[in-house]
Amino acid sequence: MSDHSKDAAQPPTTVGHTSGRVTLPVEEGMDDRLTGILADLGADAVRNSDGTWLPEIVGTLPVKVYATRFCARGDEAWAVDHLDQHTSIYVCSDRVPALVDGPLRIDIMAGFLADQLRPDTEVDVSRWWQVRDRTTGEVLAPSGWTVRGEGSECTVTIAGAHAGHVYTVAFLAAQIWDSTQIYNYTTNHWENDPTRVKEHSYNVAFPDTWNHVRDDLGSWLDAHPEVDVVRFTTFFYHFTLYFNDRAQEKYVDWFGYSASVSVPLMEQFEAETGRVIDPEDFIDAGYHNSSFRPPSPFFLAWIGFVNRFVVEKVRTLVQICHDKGREAMMFLGDNWIGTEPYGDLFATTGLDAVVGSVGSAATTRMISDIPGVRYTEGRFLPYFFPDVFNDRGDPIGEANTSWITARRAIMRSPLDRIGFGGYLSLAAQFPDFMARISEICQEFRDFWERSRGETPQSAPFRVGILNAWGRSRSWMTFMVAHALYYKQADPYLGVVEALAGLPFQIDWLSFDDIAEGVPEEIGVIINAGAAGTSFSGGPAWADPRIQAVIRRFVAAGGGLIGVGEPSFHIGEGAALQLSDILGVDREMGWSLSTDRYPRTEPDHFITADLGADLEVGPVAPEIVTTSADTLVLAAGEATVRLSVHSYGAGRAVYLAGLPYSPDNARLLARALWWAAGREQEFADSFVAEDPRVEVSVYPDSGCLLAANTVLEPVSTVVRGAGHDYRVTLDAAGSQWLPLVHQQG
Amino acid sequence: MSDHSKDAAQPPTTVGHTSGRVTLPVEEGMDDRLTGILADLGADAVRNSDGTWLPEIVGTLPVKVYATRFCARGDEAWAVDHLDQHTSIYVCSDRVPALVDGPLRIDIMAGFLADQLRPDTEVDVSRWWQVRDRTTGEVLAPSGWTVRGEGSECTVTIAGAHAGHVYTVAFLAAQIWDSTQIYNYTTNHWENDPTRVKEHSYNVAFPDTWNHVRDDLGSWLDAHPEVDVVRFTTFFYHFTLYFNDRAQEKYVDWFGYSASVSVPLMEQFEAETGRVIDPEDFIDAGYHNSSFRPPSPFFLAWIGFVNRFVVEKVRTLVQICHDKGREAMMFLGDNWIGTEPYGDLFATTGLDAVVGSVGSAATTRMISDIPGVRYTEGRFLPYFFPDVFNDRGDPIGEANTSWITARRAIMRSPLDRIGFGGYLSLAAQFPDFMARISEICQEFRDFWERSRGETPQSAPFRVGILNAWGRSRSWMTFMVAHALYYKQADPYLGVVEALAGLPFQIDWLSFDDIAEGVPEEIGVIINAGAAGTSFSGGPAWADPRIQAVIRRFVAAGGGLIGVGEPSFHIGEGAALQLSDILGVDREMGWSLSTDRYPRTEPDHFITADLGADLEVGPVAPEIVTTSADTLVLAAGEATVRLSVHSYGAGRAVYLAGLPYSPDNARLLARALWWAAGREQEFADSFVAEDPRVEVSVYPDSGCLLAANTVLEPVSTVVRGAGHDYRVTLDAAGSQWLPLVHQQG
Repeated sequence: MSDHSKDAAQPPTTVGHTSGRVTLPVEEGMDDRLTGILADLGADAVRNSDGTWLPEIVGTLPVKVYATRFCARGDEAWAVDHLDQHTSIYVCSDRVPALVDGPLRIDIMAGFLADQLRPDTEVDVSRWWQVRDRTTGEVLAPSGWTVRGEGSECTVTIAGAHAGHVYTVAFLAAQIWDSTQIYNYTTNHWENDPTRVKEHSYNVAFPDTWNHVRDDLGSWLDAHPEVDVVRFTTFFYHFTLYFNDRAQEKYVDWFGYSASVSVPLMEQFEAETGRVIDPEDFIDAGYHNSSFRPPSPFFLAWIGFVNRFVVEKVRTLVQICHDKGREAMMFLGDNWIGTEPYGDLFATTGLDAVVGSVGSAATTRMISDIPGVRYTEGRFLPYFFPDVFNDRGDPIGEANTSWITARRAIMRSPLDRIGFGGYLSLAAQFPDFMARISEICQEFRDFWERSRGETPQSAPFRVGILNAWGRSRSWMTFMVAHALYYKQADPYLGVVEALAGLPFQIDWLSFDDIAEGVPEEIGVIINAGAAGTSFSGGPAWADPRIQAVIRRFVAAGGGLIGVGEPSFHIGEGAALQLSDILGVDREMGWSLSTDRYPRTEPDHFITADLGADLEVGPVAPEIVTTSADTLVLAAGEATVRLSVHSYGAGRAVYLAGLPYSPDNARLLARALWWAAGREQEFADSFVAEDPRVEVSVYPDSGCLLAANTVLEPVSTVVRGAGHDYRVTLDAAGSQWLPLVHQQG
Repeated sequence: MSDHSKDAAQPPTTVGHTSGRVTLPVEEGMDDRLTGILADLGADAVRNSDGTWLPEIVGTLPVKVYATRFCARGDEAWAVDHLDQHTSIYVCSDRVPALVDGPLRIDIMAGFLADQLRPDTEVDVSRWWQVRDRTTGEVLAPSGWTVRGEGSECTVTIAGAHAGHVYTVAFLAAQIWDSTQIYNYTTNHWENDPTRVKEHSYNVAFPDTWNHVRDDLGSWLDAHPEVDVVRFTTFFYHFTLYFNDRAQEKYVDWFGYSASVSVPLMEQFEAETGRVIDPEDFIDAGYHNSSFRPPSPFFLAWIGFVNRFVVEKVRTLVQICHDKGREAMMFLGDNWIGTEPYGDLFATTGLDAVVGSVGSAATTRMISDIPGVRYTEGRFLPYFFPDVFNDRGDPIGEANTSWITARRAIMRSPLDRIGFGGYLSLAAQFPDFMARISEICQEFRDFWERSRGETPQSAPFRVGILNAWGRSRSWMTFMVAHALYYKQADPYLGVVEALAGLPFQIDWLSFDDIAEGVPEEIGVIINAGAAGTSFSGGPAWADPRIQAVIRRFVAAGGGLIGVGEPSFHIGEGAALQLSDILGVDREMGWSLSTDRYPRTEPDHFITADLGADLEVGPVAPEIVTTSADTLVLAAGEATVRLSVHSYGAGRAVYLAGLPYSPDNARLLARALWWAAGREQEFADSFVAEDPRVEVSVYPDSGCLLAANTVLEPVSTVVRGAGHDYRVTLDAAGSQWLPLVHQQG
């Protein structure tokens, strides 16, 4: 940590060049330049990447050394000797219609990458595979179908298919090539590199393999005294990721557990829980328990089981590292399934640190908010890969965007360290880029210097985000693949992205968490998401208790913000079950006969800073007013985009969607203050007049940080505690100011 | 009828001024001008309107005289003497939440027009009213609530409401002011006219009233020998239409039966069918059995019952007219509920004619296709009312639009007569308008002269429109109020509107109609509509038989066109149950993890005439491809707008929506030919190169009619049977051409 002796009541001065808190990737073949680069960036740690090796020189440098460690691949000799100890994946064939009565042959590997998956015909297919008539929902008796052939030639023939019915085959497949490696191969064209080997998976659910992985870690540490930090990349089970027959991504779910299966693990699950697994539990009608699906009781039980299994083994591996005087760091990604960083067990792993890729403010908070580890590290973009570092790429632009995005989150809940990945030798060919990230690294260290790690000031009420996942998917809601854009998720993800940088304390609440009442500290509940998803809640809203809890909460003075299709569950004359609170409902086409006379209100506290028309994204649902008291603040053609409604002593805000933008983040902040009934406190809450500038206030440190969230200069005034602070910020710039204490 | 002796093989010449087939509204006070106006327009019939009286002179004019006759209002003396013999309506209070435990008082008339409805507190409210907890779905025991007060002061108090639950009161209300009259009052400001009386409803379900209505018709006919045609406006039950407390329309369903109820009729229904009525059967959770709702078994039974009740009494009234040498004509609107013109019983009424208001091609066909009557008449727009006939109005423009719209339908299935409504004295102040409608009347007569009533040539396969209503709602699908625009219905109504003028023979099929297989003559099935509506089908798609029938039909070479959310019923991994045929599915947010690689095809037979980007309307659903074989012909951001997919020997077309336009009508025609697998026959099928021109071919009469569907001139070539016909049409113009028979 840096020196904390400065008088915070004095205007902060420039800190000057310091070092620390930064990790750089290094590789062989650039020993002569390494010391200089490390000094320029103030790096105090180095690492290798997937596909690079640490140079011998690292042992002599004044830095910590991270080394990547794989636990489910990488030891190809072991893998090839134990091909039967693989990890499997549950997948589903195409939906195949029978066009005539009689035998129907299904080519189960059609559309899958044969290099990645091999049908697990060694298992008891009558137990672990399943053929379903998707027209009737019936399971076909195993006597009614036969498996023939192996690998990509594997087929299932249904003896007596019915014309006009659709069939699927759910099957287990061996993961014979690691998913992340496939991605790296195709991204970097490693297929042309003879030094590369396609790595099979192996599975610690098999005792032999577990013993090997465990023991080999100790041996490896003994053989590598230069390694200070074991960077596990990661543990045992990859998130669900499989490819099609052209090696294009076919399915990706960063939270998916479909690739955590194997017969021994499933048998252990059955023994431990008393539940009998139905292959459909994993197949989930083809949706594979996407985190957008309201989670089934089975799926929650499976997550819990895998979590216990994984954590126990992680604990053993971490203990080995500690016993040998090393730190253990987990990479948040790849084979992270089962670790559940926001679960109760995570802290028991003993892991020292988590490192993850920063792709947005939300993913930054997802890392920085993880409880139970000593420190967190964010890997910034761009990754030093040839897809960006070339004549047409814009590495500096990407670095700036990455920084202003992540900084919003860091201002609320700081990462302890930042770092980069990829090939340093490549980035070093771009000196302007290296200079810019050197500035960013310094700005990051300055942040810690000024804020002293103090938790910044927040609004005087907490915000609860209510969905089916609650705390276990903190900052992970609406995410499909890590920080990638999905049109249908973006208008909801924007809420999370906005909150990641706004001065509110957030609680992630499941429906169970509120079943007996909304926690007392909560001022406003947000329910956001598309109809029928885990995030809007799905069947949870069929529960009268849940509805009643929210109604009583709002009636008593609480706030409710609904985004998209909040509380959607069709029944008893409402599509949005809380339509009486929200003052709006989803038009399903059944109430076109009802005339609506919406009251519009162009000027409102919530929209006061909106520069242009409200942008709700391209999938906004059809929403109509249900109350004469609903005030519509923004509308599309005969549909509500933003409205407000009072309810008892409380207030509700409806938003059709909220893709992230500085304007929309400000609008959400205002909506929260208004819904809480405390909008009169907003103007003096250290808020910049210009929504493009965000402010964090550190009262104990006597300072505030104003940061520009855009890549153009902004001048504005920040109002707080009776004082006006004028700030002029460069593109992407930030400025520290001392807090002024008013007289009287 | 006019002279049919012309040689059709010769180029038709101008027919010249003829007369007949036209009905004009007349009124008192313009006797001197009447003969001239009737001659100019070639009118051979006159009528009065609601609020005008026939002048005495009509008895001496060489025209048929229509006189309006009401059967449920108009005899205010009777009504006031028999206030207990009213028609009721089933309505539902606001959804009222209990914010605290304890008594909850619901002001049941809040939001209703007290001048229209009076709560029926005289009935056994414990039997016919109902209080529901809309949070649990429970019915409250009548002992748990009490009714107090009358009229607009009427309240229901629930003794022990639960905080956080929402309650509704379903109640019967007397219709104390006729709905159409309320509309006419507010539209024409009759409230300032002391000669007007607000008319109560009376109800032929009460024997006294029925005897009075029946007997009074005979007396009235005896007293009015000048009346040739009794224009019933209409019979006994109004479509559902009620107003809010500001006298604005609150609810309108042109097909609604909620206003057909009364205790005697419900008791008769129970006795006849053995079913016990639950008030919720009518309330339908507040959706009031809108025709967009998949109809419940109860609702179909009630329609059937009211239909039998109404038809029997209509038959009696018609017989009285016939016995006295008069014709009986039904106005298709207002109190038309229970007549069911496309039902099996309609022809048994003996009605001579149906007249209805023409607001679109679809509403024209809705009239002209009615089976079982001798003739049909369309009342054209504009209605001669002050809302259009003023300094700012455009009566000629409205007449032209009305004509080119209706002409599309007339070319396929002609009305026998046309007419106008409102105040002739008002229209007569606009001589250019009178001249223009005189031309239109002549063009209409010429149509009959040339076509000789021949059914025009159609494509060599039939088109089946599949929905929950089938034939009973022929040309009425997607309609809420008569020919009014509804954003969410327009993209589907466009399909019907297009078909109303396209050369295809249409069958309206219910799911029952196809349960054993698609009728043999059908070449293409269309399933169109929003998710969960009667039109896309709703729960019908849960039936494996229905799915299998369509799959076998397409696999064997049939065509399927799905529009919007066809076959929507979530289950077994599909939202669109026929996604395997269509090659697309509705994205519910559950399959964002699945990568899609849509194949696009900019050039296709179906889109060949599309001048600009495909317009699918503002409520297009999120649609993704499910097959590598699906060809996307038009797309929005990551969503399919138009695609095609082959399936066995058949073909499917998906369209996200199809609001009517000449381009979209052409696109639908091409989609139908393509789906039928007969696209090679299209080019020579008497189709104009320019989609704005439509053609009807009358082989027996040896001629064709090319008509311009837009208000600007168009020159184009029509190709058919090996010959090119060049046509040059004025704005809104049309041209008759003799058919050329090719040698060889």
